[in-house]
Amino acid sequence: VSYGRDAGGERTVSRGGGGLATALRGLVEQHDVTWIANAMTDEDRVVAGEDQRGTILIAQDRDAYARFYNVIANPTLWFVQHMLWDLARTPDWDDARHDAWTNGYVPVNVRMARATLAELDRDPSAAVFFHDYHLYLAPAFVRRERPDALLAHFVHIPWPEADAWTVLPPTIRHDVLTGLLANDVVGFHTHRWQRSFVRSCVDVLGATVDGDMVEYDGRRTLVTSHPIGIAPSELDELKQDENVLAREREIEASRPEQLVLRVDRTDPSKNVVRGLRAFGLMLDRHPDLRGRVRMLALLDPSRQDIPEYVDYVAAVEREARSLGNAVDLRVGDDFARSVAAYKQFDVLLVNAVFDGLNLVSKEGPYVNERDGVLVLSENAGAHEELGEWALSVNPFDVSAQADAIHEALTMSATERRRRAEAIRAHVRAHDVGAWGDTQLADLDRVRSLP
Amino acid sequence: VSYGRDAGGERTVSRGGGGLATALRGLVEQHDVTWIANAMTDEDRVVAGEDQRGTILIAQDRDAYARFYNVIANPTLWFVQHMLWDLARTPDWDDARHDAWTNGYVPVNVRMARATLAELDRDPSAAVFFHDYHLYLAPAFVRRERPDALLAHFVHIPWPEADAWTVLPPTIRHDVLTGLLANDVVGFHTHRWQRSFVRSCVDVLGATVDGDMVEYDGRRTLVTSHPIGIAPSELDELKQDENVLAREREIEASRPEQLVLRVDRTDPSKNVVRGLRAFGLMLDRHPDLRGRVRMLALLDPSRQDIPEYVDYVAAVEREARSLGNAVDLRVGDDFARSVAAYKQFDVLLVNAVFDGLNLVSKEGPYVNERDGVLVLSENAGAHEELGEWALSVNPFDVSAQADAIHEALTMSATERRRRAEAIRAHVRAHDVGAWGDTQLADLDRVRSLP
Repeated sequence: VSYGRDAGGERTVSRGGGGLATALRGLVEQHDVTWIANAMTDEDRVVAGEDQRGTILIAQDRDAYARFYNVIANPTLWFVQHMLWDLARTPDWDDARHDAWTNGYVPVNVRMARATLAELDRDPSAAVFFHDYHLYLAPAFVRRERPDALLAHFVHIPWPEADAWTVLPPTIRHDVLTGLLANDVVGFHTHRWQRSFVRSCVDVLGATVDGDMVEYDGRRTLVTSHPIGIAPSELDELKQDENVLAREREIEASRPEQLVLRVDRTDPSKNVVRGLRAFGLMLDRHPDLRGRVRMLALLDPSRQDIPEYVDYVAAVEREARSLGNAVDLRVGDDFARSVAAYKQFDVLLVNAVFDGLNLVSKEGPYVNERDGVLVLSENAGAHEELGEWALSVNPFDVSAQADAIHEALTMSATERRRRAEAIRAHVRAHDVGAWGDTQLADLDRVRSLP
Repeated sequence: VSYGRDAGGERTVSRGGGGLATALRGLVEQHDVTWIANAMTDEDRVVAGEDQRGTILIAQDRDAYARFYNVIANPTLWFVQHMLWDLARTPDWDDARHDAWTNGYVPVNVRMARATLAELDRDPSAAVFFHDYHLYLAPAFVRRERPDALLAHFVHIPWPEADAWTVLPPTIRHDVLTGLLANDVVGFHTHRWQRSFVRSCVDVLGATVDGDMVEYDGRRTLVTSHPIGIAPSELDELKQDENVLAREREIEASRPEQLVLRVDRTDPSKNVVRGLRAFGLMLDRHPDLRGRVRMLALLDPSRQDIPEYVDYVAAVEREARSLGNAVDLRVGDDFARSVAAYKQFDVLLVNAVFDGLNLVSKEGPYVNERDGVLVLSENAGAHEELGEWALSVNPFDVSAQADAIHEALTMSATERRRRAEAIRAHVRAHDVGAWGDTQLADLDRVRSLP
């Protein structure tokens, strides 16, 4: 939730878009939940000073928050976990980055832990769910004060193996891991990230493993994997939304015979440049398809306070320009257009370098009405679930991506339908509600441990 | 061994410098060994056409060799194994890189396997030792023809975990792993690389593990780790060599009170730029040391056919210039100067991003005559052996490296001596002869298996 003011000076409320916010909203609506979050806007900060119920916004120190968010969370941790650093050159742990850790990431986590403790004072039996890479330290601060609290953490991004974690200095990677192991449950989207996390605990901390429990420093933590799902009913409604239908008419009016779609944030992990190159290579190999197929790239500009992200958008735009009108690149935040494009694609390209899960690979096929084919990176978390029905690609293999796009464009209707139906059935059966149930089941399991 | 012609047209022979060549020479001299290698120079190619004994040079197709060496071995495999790719941007497996694999790395390995098979025809009981990342496929080609041959492989560079290997397309990483598992023994310098290799086999191939044996496709491969050592007697002699003594007089005449040394190839994995930054930061923090301490960086220009390497030398030179006369940067191949500098250092900086072992960290302290302190990256293989006597640094933590250099410069004479003596004793006890014995013991072990 984020607050603003309208032209008349009245307070406005907007609810976050994006897959994760949508997914969590479903969970929150079904249970008695207090949501604690950092204040982002000026009006959020006003709300943070008021008497809050249900949603509690924390007004962090602005400088600390900037260090926390724009230096440590992004790009440092994000780049470590997606293996995006150009290690011969970056990052440096110089005074600025150390300062961002000590006077940014640490105090923001402390502040969040304090708000959590206040909520536990109000309701000592409440379970606490921490989310993602912004809050690796908070669980340890809460645990110190509440040895018996029930704490769970879900990490939505990839967890690489111990070598990649050496990009963090020893004390920092130690604190990240011990922070997470202060929880009773740590969850990931895939077996792959789960396994890497367990190995990291063994390699870095010398933790021991007993089945799916990690033992360290006299505590046991359940480490699980549960891929998050979509909210089918929300998407069903959205498909009929007037804005979406208007967008769809625009796409239909201008689309060629076949449409290759990608929908992403402009994040280096999403691998947009190689995707464009692959599409161009496919056209070079099959010139008969020129004019009959177009790539529509809908990119939500992301984290534009961070130089690495600004550079990446420029690289994407250069690559797209080199392909002329074979590519329709739209950089902007327009979820209605994304949903309209989901309905219209013949091929959906998800070729992420690394991705924790990738909800586009579930939303797109669920909404699609043309039995479109999913081309899916083997390094996207969703590949564990959907790989058998997608055309798998290696994210670095531009040549193979070109071939996969062509195979998708020329696949028989029967085969397209078979694959599309299998994905839709899987996505419907494993929705966000089912995911929420797994979170609660994990809690029940650790609650009942001796 | 490499051949040339002198001014009078007579054939000349030069023996490779560098730690690995020195180390292997000791092994070769003590046993009845045939050395098979690729011809590098024009004269090598002439020799390759002659009747050869003891050393067999293979004249590979020039284009195939260029693809093999300058595209696949370096940078592709080297960058994968040292985690140096800037994955949002590079590498692309485009037509050129695929071609370099299919028409470069593969046929060069086939040709090397054929030469090995010819040698096995001559002596069917001979054991075959493959070395390093250039020959991952050759063992499988030999195994196909000689199911009972005794094959061992030593990988001298890091082995990262399975996530890093996804930079290779699935069939290629499969062939790399099955190529290695065609050996009876696969050796690494450290437990860390050994463990990652075993995990890769499990993750990528679904191999099973039984103690230190990996089982795959009906075969068992012993996976071991034995850090290579130096040849003490060669270094003892070199210390007294007239060229070395001349170089030492030059260094002595110009040296300030204290000397911080690094000796490396100009390879991005060596982390020269961050080392220079750390030294500059140390001087900023301790201006009293300006003029009293200098960094001497002796860099052997390496792989200058490869753009990434040319760029890196330029970055090193820019960084060094920014530090003025606090840094004496020498880019050139002068082993005598390196040995002279080994004798003279007060601090030896080895801060590699990743390094299979790093022989400088053994040669330097062994030769040094000032109880110099070793500052050693936690990601250098030698850290498993020498870490307890070195000042450990994280290669990305420029701030901590600055502190470690200062700590080394200001360490008490007693403490310096204690550490230096411990390293010298370890290096002397674990020399290259001892390493060779471990290779033979591993062979005996697999030979005696049922």
